[in-house]
Amino acid sequence: MIKAKPKQINDDRVILGIDPGTNLMGYGILLIRNQKPELVALGVLNLGKYDNHALKLKKIFECVLGLIEQYVPDELSIEAPFFGKNIQSMLKLGRAQGVAIAAAVYRNIPITEYLPRKIKQSVTGNGNASKEQVAAMLKNILHLENQLEGESLDATDALAAALCHYFQHKKTVGTKSYSGWDAFIKDNPNRVK
Amino acid sequence: MIKAKPKQINDDRVILGIDPGTNLMGYGILLIRNQKPELVALGVLNLGKYDNHALKLKKIFECVLGLIEQYVPDELSIEAPFFGKNIQSMLKLGRAQGVAIAAAVYRNIPITEYLPRKIKQSVTGNGNASKEQVAAMLKNILHLENQLEGESLDATDALAAALCHYFQHKKTVGTKSYSGWDAFIKDNPNRVK
Repeated sequence: MIKAKPKQINDDRVILGIDPGTNLMGYGILLIRNQKPELVALGVLNLGKYDNHALKLKKIFECVLGLIEQYVPDELSIEAPFFGKNIQSMLKLGRAQGVAIAAAVYRNIPITEYLPRKIKQSVTGNGNASKEQVAAMLKNILHLENQLEGESLDATDALAAALCHYFQHKKTVGTKSYSGWDAFIKDNPNRVK
Repeated sequence: MIKAKPKQINDDRVILGIDPGTNLMGYGILLIRNQKPELVALGVLNLGKYDNHALKLKKIFECVLGLIEQYVPDELSIEAPFFGKNIQSMLKLGRAQGVAIAAAVYRNIPITEYLPRKIKQSVTGNGNASKEQVAAMLKNILHLENQLEGESLDATDALAAALCHYFQHKKTVGTKSYSGWDAFIKDNPNRVK
């Protein structure tokens, strides 16, 4: 886990990226200062040690709420897959997403969802990039040296979600919009029944 | 919507039943007084009017939090199907469940999940009972006259979830346990991959 001081300047913009899952939840925080993204913090919440599903959800909620209180993000960017092989897995994933979203919603933080493919495309230029390739590109774009060493790929994925949101909204700073699910349905009317 | 005063006596126990969905969320509140269940309130949150998925989740969170603040329930009983035909529907349902659970978790209210079949079985004696049969049995058990007339079947389903929880925990008042998902997996190891 890497920690740095929260934002200092009023014009700064902080983006919290979340990659929610039922066993691991990655998070990454970017500070946009002078129109450049800087790494503030990233890490992973390990849920594997809790054998109780409701307790996992509680920990996700508390973690996201804690990150919001500590870093005061202006926006939440969330990696949200819409497809999976297994009905039960998707229900559990939906719950993990729902809990993370609830924490942001509770603090009135605008949420934007991105498909994993979209995040990879945005950060690396390749929608099928590996997690390792995403991490390598983050290191390059954010001018990092050893800060990502030993970090979980779930943490870098979450940071990539934050960076993707920055790239998507570079030209529209100040606009607040929900997308993701609704945009997906709009774009893929025949894939949702 | 039926409203009554919140509980007055310290020994009373209040159970909040929730039937979360992405278009309608039913809720029902039972007061257990002198070891007998009484109807306190029931109703439905209509989400169909919001075309934004994140806004629906926000409304669910606010509604559940509002019910908790108004009625100060001791426990949350949630109707939670584990099966569905469609991956996307289950993801959306999982999100709705997750948000409702997050509100309870945030207020440290113990949660118990029940399969729809279990609720029907518990309330009517028949796991395949119709929603109308469940409503009729609620009227009978709770000695209601016209209070349920015109109420949504999602509201009575949620009230049934609360009553089911009361029946299941009649002999173990004071014990707090999470069940549902974990119990389901334990009982059905080969149905979850």
